[in-house]
Amino acid sequence: MHLPRTATTFFPPVMEARRWLEGVEFPPERPLINVSQAAPVDPPPKLLRQVIAEAALNTPEAHLYGPVLGLPALREEVASQWCAAYEGEISASNVAITSGCNQAFCAAISTLCAEGDEVILPTPWYFNHKMWLDMVGVKTVPLPAGAELLPDPGQAEALITDRTRAISLVTPNNPGGVEYPADLVHAFFELARRRGIALIVDETYRDFDARPGAPHDLFKDPDWHDTLIQLYSFSKAYRLTGHRVGAMVAAPERLGEAEKFLDTVTICPNQLGQIAALWGMKNLGQWLAGERAEILDRRAAIHDNMPRLSAQGWQLLGCGAYFAYMQHPFDMPSDKLAQKLVAEAGILLLPGTMFQPANDPSGARQLRIAFANVNRAEIGDLFDRLEALRWPLAPAGVNA
Amino acid sequence: MHLPRTATTFFPPVMEARRWLEGVEFPPERPLINVSQAAPVDPPPKLLRQVIAEAALNTPEAHLYGPVLGLPALREEVASQWCAAYEGEISASNVAITSGCNQAFCAAISTLCAEGDEVILPTPWYFNHKMWLDMVGVKTVPLPAGAELLPDPGQAEALITDRTRAISLVTPNNPGGVEYPADLVHAFFELARRRGIALIVDETYRDFDARPGAPHDLFKDPDWHDTLIQLYSFSKAYRLTGHRVGAMVAAPERLGEAEKFLDTVTICPNQLGQIAALWGMKNLGQWLAGERAEILDRRAAIHDNMPRLSAQGWQLLGCGAYFAYMQHPFDMPSDKLAQKLVAEAGILLLPGTMFQPANDPSGARQLRIAFANVNRAEIGDLFDRLEALRWPLAPAGVNA
Repeated sequence: MHLPRTATTFFPPVMEARRWLEGVEFPPERPLINVSQAAPVDPPPKLLRQVIAEAALNTPEAHLYGPVLGLPALREEVASQWCAAYEGEISASNVAITSGCNQAFCAAISTLCAEGDEVILPTPWYFNHKMWLDMVGVKTVPLPAGAELLPDPGQAEALITDRTRAISLVTPNNPGGVEYPADLVHAFFELARRRGIALIVDETYRDFDARPGAPHDLFKDPDWHDTLIQLYSFSKAYRLTGHRVGAMVAAPERLGEAEKFLDTVTICPNQLGQIAALWGMKNLGQWLAGERAEILDRRAAIHDNMPRLSAQGWQLLGCGAYFAYMQHPFDMPSDKLAQKLVAEAGILLLPGTMFQPANDPSGARQLRIAFANVNRAEIGDLFDRLEALRWPLAPAGVNA
Repeated sequence: MHLPRTATTFFPPVMEARRWLEGVEFPPERPLINVSQAAPVDPPPKLLRQVIAEAALNTPEAHLYGPVLGLPALREEVASQWCAAYEGEISASNVAITSGCNQAFCAAISTLCAEGDEVILPTPWYFNHKMWLDMVGVKTVPLPAGAELLPDPGQAEALITDRTRAISLVTPNNPGGVEYPADLVHAFFELARRRGIALIVDETYRDFDARPGAPHDLFKDPDWHDTLIQLYSFSKAYRLTGHRVGAMVAAPERLGEAEKFLDTVTICPNQLGQIAALWGMKNLGQWLAGERAEILDRRAAIHDNMPRLSAQGWQLLGCGAYFAYMQHPFDMPSDKLAQKLVAEAGILLLPGTMFQPANDPSGARQLRIAFANVNRAEIGDLFDRLEALRWPLAPAGVNA
């Protein structure tokens, strides 16, 4: 009856998908197209690598414990850039650095929830959020985002109970790719404040938002911190996935509580990663603008290629951040199809079932393509392969 | 009634102690002696720093996500060195790399416990273990280790209930400094196995054990993994505290469960730290032997200096690993005394109250000195200052 924490949740989807590759061979003329994980495939620019190397050699503190909530200079820099970007008041005492953005979510939840509490997540959800809620005994209340992949605040309000502690949004969205309109985010903020719960906004993909200016106006409210907890990742912007650096922006009192969690789980974020993030923020603004342009071009490539799949019954449900979220036309559950695509088409992607409650049928036809990992030519190749699929699909390979 | 997770535990002791320093000035002729945190104060040797720098510059994967359970080569190396050191069968599939040893403990508990379960911890305990159990709703059952700081398996057995999931030992012990005899560790293992619970053995300080050979024989049992979960840290041996690399050695099935937790909390351990740990294991054996000799000399310095404090009623309860655990003679709770020592004697150390349940009076007279951070001369200075203390102590400074 008393299942250990980890037994209450599922295995990590990205790792599970990687196991589908075992025993499958990809001929040189048709190499694997891996669009399963949202991660840059190249290292950071050389100047940034040199900064890390230099710190490793000549900054003794880079090897020693640092403050639990992160390097003061990095907290200052986030605060300063956030004030400018969001036109609000954010100080260093509002910023905690974490070992990646996943950990920021975990820390936030641990400051909000007890066993049996509830958190509302729009579906399709980011699976690590669901996994953490499972593992800390918090009930995930799914809020179906519908055909437009935009959750509705009115529908969310109807789900609030006396155990609800937060609504958690991801914008630009993972897995859906949609950028939530500023007024939608604002409506969720007002709802959360009115009902005395927190609004978590995970902005891991903010640097690749197609819109100019701030994606929402929440920080303009001088009392934003009574309701808002914002999460951020340095991994995507500066190609630092292997360094594990993220951030949580919230009230100082909440960060004081988060400090207990972070101290216990990791003691402090690793120092070289923080040094890299700080240098990146200060010096790579222009480079990052180029990265954004490249991602936006890949997103355009998805749209450019889409008509030939639409002709075969595919639908593009959302496209932005690092993701295209598609509905496929085949009479096959998406988790089976995704496994078949490995041997059949040399494509590794994640099925919608990995982003949905088991009892929600909508994921059964959906697929997430993490397009940031592939360039325009490879996107063309990806669509060639998807276009060539015919029902019934050929017999499955070793792992299908 | 429903306190959020973090509200169920206390603030991080090391950070709290650091706050005692605020506003206190330390004259040049009597600088602060900081023996509060168990951490090397120097960076790793130059060759290791060069390896990190080289990887940052020229190993692209060092900047990208790696496997959740760690670099395969590092897992292999731990397994290989463990087989030799413990004369047992440990394979790479028994090893997970974590973002520090604290995280290994958190992951282990998450694979074992549900809300309301119980874990037995000898007291004085390592506070981060207690904090994690609090934050995941697990009841900590204290097992007083007594005057010798050696917990008794018979006494432990009497504390086992149908909710007990594990007994967790730290040897060499933090904060007590004692090295648990091999037969004592074995007796706990037999007890745990007989009662169908896990035995967690945190060996963060194993590289500084004064005894030759393996500190216990648990791995010699071919079925060790049905009961044992061993934890390790690379931080102390290779001076990598700022890189956050630890390990968990257990059954592959348990590591499969731990993977869920680790994926959700950090995705993967940072890559440069793992590269550093691997190179250290392969190349710094002799250097580490020198580090051990130095720590053992500092430990000897504690013993050499002790008589002059003993003459004033102090007692040395335990001495080993990085720690001396002392009983002071003053009519003052140790948490008040510790705060007074900052301004009064220029010493920052942690009081026994930080390692005990609030209702256990034994911590009230105890102090932990993390002596690894100070050399023999500084230890002499530390004892000079403690010897000079006279009751009643002078009026408190700003923060006392």
